[in-house]
Amino acid sequence: MSNHPWPTPATIAYGGDYNPEQWPREVWDEDVVLMREAGVTMVSVGIFSWGLLEPEEGVFDFAWLDELLDLLHANGIAVDLGTPTASPPAWFFATYPHALAVDKHGVVQGFGSRGMASHSAPEYRRAAARIAGELARRYGQHPAVVMWHVHNEYGVPVGEDFSPNAVAAWRVWLQERYGSLDALNAAWGTAFWGQRYGRWEHVVAPAATPTTVNPAMKLDWARFTDDQLRACFRAERDAIRAHADQPVTTNFMAHQSWNTDLWAWAQEVDIVSDDHYLWSPDPDAHVALALSADLTRSVARGRPWILMEHSTSAVNWQGRNIAKRPGEMHRNALTHVGRGADGIMFFQWRASRSGAEKFHSAMVPHAGPTSRIFREVASLGARLGAIGELQDTRVRAQVAVLYDWESLWAQDLEWRPSDALQFRERMRAYYERLWRDGVQVDFAHPGDDLSGYRLVVAPASYLLTAAQGENLTRYVAGGGTLLVSCFAAVVDEHDAVHHGGFGAPLREALGLTVEEFLPMREGESCAVELDGRTLTADVWAEDLAVDGAQVRGTYSGGPADGAPAVTRHEHGDGVGWYVSTRLDVAALAPVLAAVYDDAGIAPSSAPEGVELMTRHGETADYVVAVNHRDDAVTVPLEGTELLSGTDVTGVLTLPAGEVAVVRSTPGGGR
Amino acid sequence: MSNHPWPTPATIAYGGDYNPEQWPREVWDEDVVLMREAGVTMVSVGIFSWGLLEPEEGVFDFAWLDELLDLLHANGIAVDLGTPTASPPAWFFATYPHALAVDKHGVVQGFGSRGMASHSAPEYRRAAARIAGELARRYGQHPAVVMWHVHNEYGVPVGEDFSPNAVAAWRVWLQERYGSLDALNAAWGTAFWGQRYGRWEHVVAPAATPTTVNPAMKLDWARFTDDQLRACFRAERDAIRAHADQPVTTNFMAHQSWNTDLWAWAQEVDIVSDDHYLWSPDPDAHVALALSADLTRSVARGRPWILMEHSTSAVNWQGRNIAKRPGEMHRNALTHVGRGADGIMFFQWRASRSGAEKFHSAMVPHAGPTSRIFREVASLGARLGAIGELQDTRVRAQVAVLYDWESLWAQDLEWRPSDALQFRERMRAYYERLWRDGVQVDFAHPGDDLSGYRLVVAPASYLLTAAQGENLTRYVAGGGTLLVSCFAAVVDEHDAVHHGGFGAPLREALGLTVEEFLPMREGESCAVELDGRTLTADVWAEDLAVDGAQVRGTYSGGPADGAPAVTRHEHGDGVGWYVSTRLDVAALAPVLAAVYDDAGIAPSSAPEGVELMTRHGETADYVVAVNHRDDAVTVPLEGTELLSGTDVTGVLTLPAGEVAVVRSTPGGGR
Amino acid sequence: MSNHPWPTPATIAYGGDYNPEQWPREVWDEDVVLMREAGVTMVSVGIFSWGLLEPEEGVFDFAWLDELLDLLHANGIAVDLGTPTASPPAWFFATYPHALAVDKHGVVQGFGSRGMASHSAPEYRRAAARIAGELARRYGQHPAVVMWHVHNEYGVPVGEDFSPNAVAAWRVWLQERYGSLDALNAAWGTAFWGQRYGRWEHVVAPAATPTTVNPAMKLDWARFTDDQLRACFRAERDAIRAHADQPVTTNFMAHQSWNTDLWAWAQEVDIVSDDHYLWSPDPDAHVALALSADLTRSVARGRPWILMEHSTSAVNWQGRNIAKRPGEMHRNALTHVGRGADGIMFFQWRASRSGAEKFHSAMVPHAGPTSRIFREVASLGARLGAIGELQDTRVRAQVAVLYDWESLWAQDLEWRPSDALQFRERMRAYYERLWRDGVQVDFAHPGDDLSGYRLVVAPASYLLTAAQGENLTRYVAGGGTLLVSCFAAVVDEHDAVHHGGFGAPLREALGLTVEEFLPMREGESCAVELDGRTLTADVWAEDLAVDGAQVRGTYSGGPADGAPAVTRHEHGDGVGWYVSTRLDVAALAPVLAAVYDDAGIAPSSAPEGVELMTRHGETADYVVAVNHRDDAVTVPLEGTELLSGTDVTGVLTLPAGEVAVVRSTPGGGR
Repeated sequence: MSNHPWPTPATIAYGGDYNPEQWPREVWDEDVVLMREAGVTMVSVGIFSWGLLEPEEGVFDFAWLDELLDLLHANGIAVDLGTPTASPPAWFFATYPHALAVDKHGVVQGFGSRGMASHSAPEYRRAAARIAGELARRYGQHPAVVMWHVHNEYGVPVGEDFSPNAVAAWRVWLQERYGSLDALNAAWGTAFWGQRYGRWEHVVAPAATPTTVNPAMKLDWARFTDDQLRACFRAERDAIRAHADQPVTTNFMAHQSWNTDLWAWAQEVDIVSDDHYLWSPDPDAHVALALSADLTRSVARGRPWILMEHSTSAVNWQGRNIAKRPGEMHRNALTHVGRGADGIMFFQWRASRSGAEKFHSAMVPHAGPTSRIFREVASLGARLGAIGELQDTRVRAQVAVLYDWESLWAQDLEWRPSDALQFRERMRAYYERLWRDGVQVDFAHPGDDLSGYRLVVAPASYLLTAAQGENLTRYVAGGGTLLVSCFAAVVDEHDAVHHGGFGAPLREALGLTVEEFLPMREGESCAVELDGRTLTADVWAEDLAVDGAQVRGTYSGGPADGAPAVTRHEHGDGVGWYVSTRLDVAALAPVLAAVYDDAGIAPSSAPEGVELMTRHGETADYVVAVNHRDDAVTVPLEGTELLSGTDVTGVLTLPAGEVAVVRSTPGGGR
Repeated sequence: MSNHPWPTPATIAYGGDYNPEQWPREVWDEDVVLMREAGVTMVSVGIFSWGLLEPEEGVFDFAWLDELLDLLHANGIAVDLGTPTASPPAWFFATYPHALAVDKHGVVQGFGSRGMASHSAPEYRRAAARIAGELARRYGQHPAVVMWHVHNEYGVPVGEDFSPNAVAAWRVWLQERYGSLDALNAAWGTAFWGQRYGRWEHVVAPAATPTTVNPAMKLDWARFTDDQLRACFRAERDAIRAHADQPVTTNFMAHQSWNTDLWAWAQEVDIVSDDHYLWSPDPDAHVALALSADLTRSVARGRPWILMEHSTSAVNWQGRNIAKRPGEMHRNALTHVGRGADGIMFFQWRASRSGAEKFHSAMVPHAGPTSRIFREVASLGARLGAIGELQDTRVRAQVAVLYDWESLWAQDLEWRPSDALQFRERMRAYYERLWRDGVQVDFAHPGDDLSGYRLVVAPASYLLTAAQGENLTRYVAGGGTLLVSCFAAVVDEHDAVHHGGFGAPLREALGLTVEEFLPMREGESCAVELDGRTLTADVWAEDLAVDGAQVRGTYSGGPADGAPAVTRHEHGDGVGWYVSTRLDVAALAPVLAAVYDDAGIAPSSAPEGVELMTRHGETADYVVAVNHRDDAVTVPLEGTELLSGTDVTGVLTLPAGEVAVVRSTPGGGR
Repeated sequence: MSNHPWPTPATIAYGGDYNPEQWPREVWDEDVVLMREAGVTMVSVGIFSWGLLEPEEGVFDFAWLDELLDLLHANGIAVDLGTPTASPPAWFFATYPHALAVDKHGVVQGFGSRGMASHSAPEYRRAAARIAGELARRYGQHPAVVMWHVHNEYGVPVGEDFSPNAVAAWRVWLQERYGSLDALNAAWGTAFWGQRYGRWEHVVAPAATPTTVNPAMKLDWARFTDDQLRACFRAERDAIRAHADQPVTTNFMAHQSWNTDLWAWAQEVDIVSDDHYLWSPDPDAHVALALSADLTRSVARGRPWILMEHSTSAVNWQGRNIAKRPGEMHRNALTHVGRGADGIMFFQWRASRSGAEKFHSAMVPHAGPTSRIFREVASLGARLGAIGELQDTRVRAQVAVLYDWESLWAQDLEWRPSDALQFRERMRAYYERLWRDGVQVDFAHPGDDLSGYRLVVAPASYLLTAAQGENLTRYVAGGGTLLVSCFAAVVDEHDAVHHGGFGAPLREALGLTVEEFLPMREGESCAVELDGRTLTADVWAEDLAVDGAQVRGTYSGGPADGAPAVTRHEHGDGVGWYVSTRLDVAALAPVLAAVYDDAGIAPSSAPEGVELMTRHGETADYVVAVNHRDDAVTVPLEGTELLSGTDVTGVLTLPAGEVAVVRSTPGGGR
């Protein structure tokens, strides 16, 4: 990431996707009036406009966009200008049918919804760079344009592609990665099941096959997919940079989309932005929101980021789309701010009358500006306007949670010991335990320098390279506390089991390896006796080969009855903990309590359901407080509550469902 | 519909599909003897005989059919002569492989089961019209032939087709519908997601795509499919009419198949006929049967119709095919009669030894003519023979239930606020409430003149055009009572949200619009307080923008806690009721009771489970009584019970599971 | 089967699949040391080595295999040499893409996992026979090679194939089977649904179709698939026999894979071998293991067989792969021995670091030779070494259970009266009842001479030809006891319902036919009153047309309330029992008790969960005892316990989970 200035100086950017091409011209005028009423400072424009901007190949029509940008600028609304390449026009696919993406069953993905072409089609890459370049050439100097928004949510709805274009690119990618077929055969372990390749052109895509595909091949396919998508981004970004200086972003979907390694992507953008939507079946979806926000800030390496999309109320693409209740949107938005967002944007400004997403909520819903939703939108705009000074303040954490997309990709492959032990579930469970304990976390890559953290938690580190294992071992030896969840350090970067058995790279840090995995049947559970408490465990147990570790929790019942379940190992100046089973959020509490003790971390004393986040500035700290509870709470705080402009003298009273932002002296916040 | 005479004069037609080509010649002679024993008056012949009648393209062999028709005629059995076009022969598909239908994933639907070719393949339409015409030329004057049975159950198993033939026809259809691409782009709202079309040939079918297809496109695709199927029917019908004068029908599947808009289809046939099968998982499948019968009569605009297929006992194509218990077939058949059927036919006469449907029950089952089933078949034949005077008498209703296939198609599309709120479920629930209350209903189209009804119920009117909204508003203003269920009048004919918000076309009639939909999670429910009763609601709630309506029921708990749930609005001389949530059949009872009061309708006083239906003749009324209960009941009636020929003096005693048909003086029935 | 000598004389063969090509050369030396430590006598080699043995078409590289076989031979380890044709190399599919298998939706099954090519591709058959022949030419005289292992698990993962090659072969196969199209049309009943064929080239495969395919066609398709697979086997076997004299096998998957009719396959191999894996969701998977072992011995017609693969602990390809607990592997292995296996082999020797099955347990697991698993492997090797004298002793049974793959294929087709009544479920339930009663069974084909058995049980004989019906009737008339479960003798070899109604071929033997099937809804059940007990039945009932049989059990409730449920019929010198509903394992107990009485069979008196199996030698009997219980038990026995070498004087005490093998005088065992 370069260090571009913030697109909307001295304010938290506020607005949403704006698609006026769906409306008659007179509505535009109403829109800008309402935007000003709502405190909107920036809108994202043009994200799905390719067909209008280039109605025929090479023929451009910018008149309507000229008019729109001028109108917005005249009204003081900045523009985040989109490239429309997430949805090529009908003529593109009619002209280049071979650029259509193909699914793993060979079904060509046709026109009529949306979704980019094959990420590997040369015609697509060319056409995408051309329209991006043309936009930049025309609007690079337009005063309204403060940022570039390349494409939309890379990886969905088209991530993997099995078209002939993709297969050709795959062979090139493999040659670059491995250099020789011997290296590829060794990395993929093709001696198994007789898969040895004698020529590059014999390598095909991991499409439909009689049974499970080579997992190392599939892991590389995930890397390839990610790389190809990122190459598409770079081609557009570079086409823009030839003509324009504003920062370039593309909207991520942290912890909601899985095809993109955001550690790598964040290096490519000038400003990190993220889309986040609540998952309706989850009654605690605000915990997942916090996770997503922390992950976004972490891939941005702590710098400010923009929440590029969220919803004012329900979405439309889930099974039962739960509407947000009064106040919920404010809690959601302020949580993003509390976790580092300096921009709060929505999809979208005005609800569409037509199309697949007409039941998606908007800033101006179908019920119009007299609606509850618009009132809350305007109120949120005012509130964000009152906290502009938070811009560029930072979040600090003593705890790092390891998050590695490569491990996610590898663990998600087929034929693991148990389908029921999943990266995402464990990540959420450990995160939620820390969230409920009021412990602020960063996410980190297992190869990062972790020495600045008191505690490192590894909820799902199935793939952990030898080098990463050494990194974690050094961290412990240097005085850190490491907590590792089961099924960890099993395979290397080629999804090959480590020599020395399961967990070998962490043997020193944890004082054990794992002799055998012991999955449980559906509906089965067992107990873990720990510090006089009986915890319930399910899904998974392990037969540990303890090599120095102290047994802290013991299985009672289940496949490992009487054997060690939770261990603690002193190594160098630090401590390595290991939890060999699946404990739910509640059962993790006493384990984490003991781990906090080792790490010297004090959990929050706020009532459960009250989320306190601190942003640290040079001259002040800002506590963002969100009350998810149905009753009022009090929080010991000193300073000025910025939303209301009132003083807080010792105690902040936060009504049910409300939010507050308190400025205090540095270090005085919490 | 033209006004052809009834095919079997002075009798309720009785019989079934007859496929003697599956049996040796000597069985035919046994068949006609058994048919006479069973009181069979008409059989449907030749429905799957294309391969025998035209063994090679253009080569016809009618000898066996000549012999068969002569045999039937000699035995006094009339023939409903089928065209065999629902199952083209092997040679057809081998000769014209491009006429095979293709599914949305591009999978060609091969030979070996049954199912017509692509509805848009010119070769299919030509071949179908030719065999229909040849049959009519040969048998148009045959004295046995009293009716023509075109094809079989249009729309299943092949409805939608994505073959190149279909795509080509689709472009023509769209040009005819819209005239210009500008009109199409506006109707489909292609500005959303950048789907604008610049040339007709860029429009493809809504086949496999990366994500959800434009819903207006899919709605038009449903209309196109329906139109193409109907064009196939017309081609055959017209080929027959060139040589034959008998009435022409094709068998519908009302409320059991969804690709055909029966309001339109019924205009094309001379006599409406319908197939109906009980749905095994439904313990109250006889309610769905009644719905289907009322719907069939309604699309026939009250004229007599034929139950073309039902089953003597179990079918074979459901998961667990429940056999009918003794008496059940009689109850089913008489319910159809009570709701307007003047013909009772079965699939099929004699159970097949081979093939996909050999476990489908028949009039002559595998157990032969000594079986219980054949005894009941013969007894039913005798009973129908005793009630010939019901022919052409009519059913009258004071209540209309709105049923619109366009609304069904639109509501069934993807990405609605909740998958759990469904057209079919709501239609059944409201119908069942009325059925349990003993209230006879017609179905009606929302564009119909409704002034003859005291009450109009709209269980699932998601798509309601502005004109239809005006029609309903006029109806209320004119003194009618209107009851509207939630998620109504949301979109226009292009699946575009109405200007003015959800429900805008009914704002005057109902005194409200809907500000926001509030779906509930799976397993969630809330209460509605109504007239001192507490009802349970689930799936759905709404945030109502009440504009004059009186609140009659209020939410307690759930996403709309404390807000209006059920409203009543006086408009002009009438009343508009609105139910903004999902109430089950039981919970609907007090709502409907209040609505009946407004409408001046008196529910039946018969015990629940006793179904009383009246057919009105010029000189007499006929009460068809069906006792679904396990105990005997008494019903106050006066007249002659026709099945037994006994007098009913004040009270009819109906044993458990039994049926009766009582002739009384007009208006004396009920 | 020919009568080849046992490959490992005077020992129970012991070992596993050995794939050293996955490991560096130095590991091989460690392997042979560990093999000797573990008592390994034989390993299977080369099963997935095609790509190494023939790196380019027609270019062979045997150097590594030469070295390997010499090394094994030098260490006294015999070799079961595999042909690698279950996984053709990448070059094969790149050179012959038309040899790829195709699924029923037309999706080509690509390279990257494993799975043979189209069974009908001439190029595949040629290439497979060539590599098999080359191996035999080179190693036919090698002293290490004691057996040939052709291919791997025919039928999975590629059984059915819908490629053009398969369709062409299918037409040839049909012409050979039927001779004329008239015969085919009659057999398939193509008059139904107008499917008559006028030319052979019009017949296609039963691939994707609009609705259910002709069931007789699908049944023939299953026979065709089985025949094609067997032809592939024969081609390889014969290529081997041209150069080599050792016995030839291929590994079956009895009762775990369904595409192969093992009665026919067993005729083609010299030694029967079988793979068996526990099914993790089944808490009593050891019962299914026993079934599989008895079935394997039965298709081998009682001769010794080899358990070619099982697992030391968990597998990797199920949803939650349950690990075996200490002792369980010994119980599994000894149960196979007790039921006739003279070889106990594993997949695989050393756990793979890479590939799809790296989480499959092995003899040398990832945790290495110090692990519990390796200790148990070595201990099992020692134990098997101690019971070499069991080799070629035989199992005897008084009860035959009918098992016919043709009936399984036919019953599994679509559109049966109830999806919930299944071949496999009924087979397991009846088998488990007999297992719990301690009654040793053989499996038999319904066309076999059954006169040697006291009791014949037919749990799932939906397809039973007239000739088979006569065979069973003769068996009863001759004094046998026959027990038939519901939905029996319904169709003939063409899946056509028998003349005379359901069950007609058994009318004499059972004294009844079935008038109608009465499936129950999900969740429904009813009672059967039998000998003063009330049993619970579900899924299925029947309306019996009793014709002489005595009613022993009567329905109470359900669709057949009050009617006969269980009958007993004396015919000639024997008795025919009929159970017309689904009784679970517990409810079957009193029925079987009554049947045992008729048959003169005494159930075992051992405690439930103690499995006693007897192998009969010329000079001694051997009781293999397996205690599946959590407590110790005593069993009355006299002789010598071979595993420990101790005398058993009247009572064998078997600790929880333990096994024993007791030599006693003939007839003294049990």
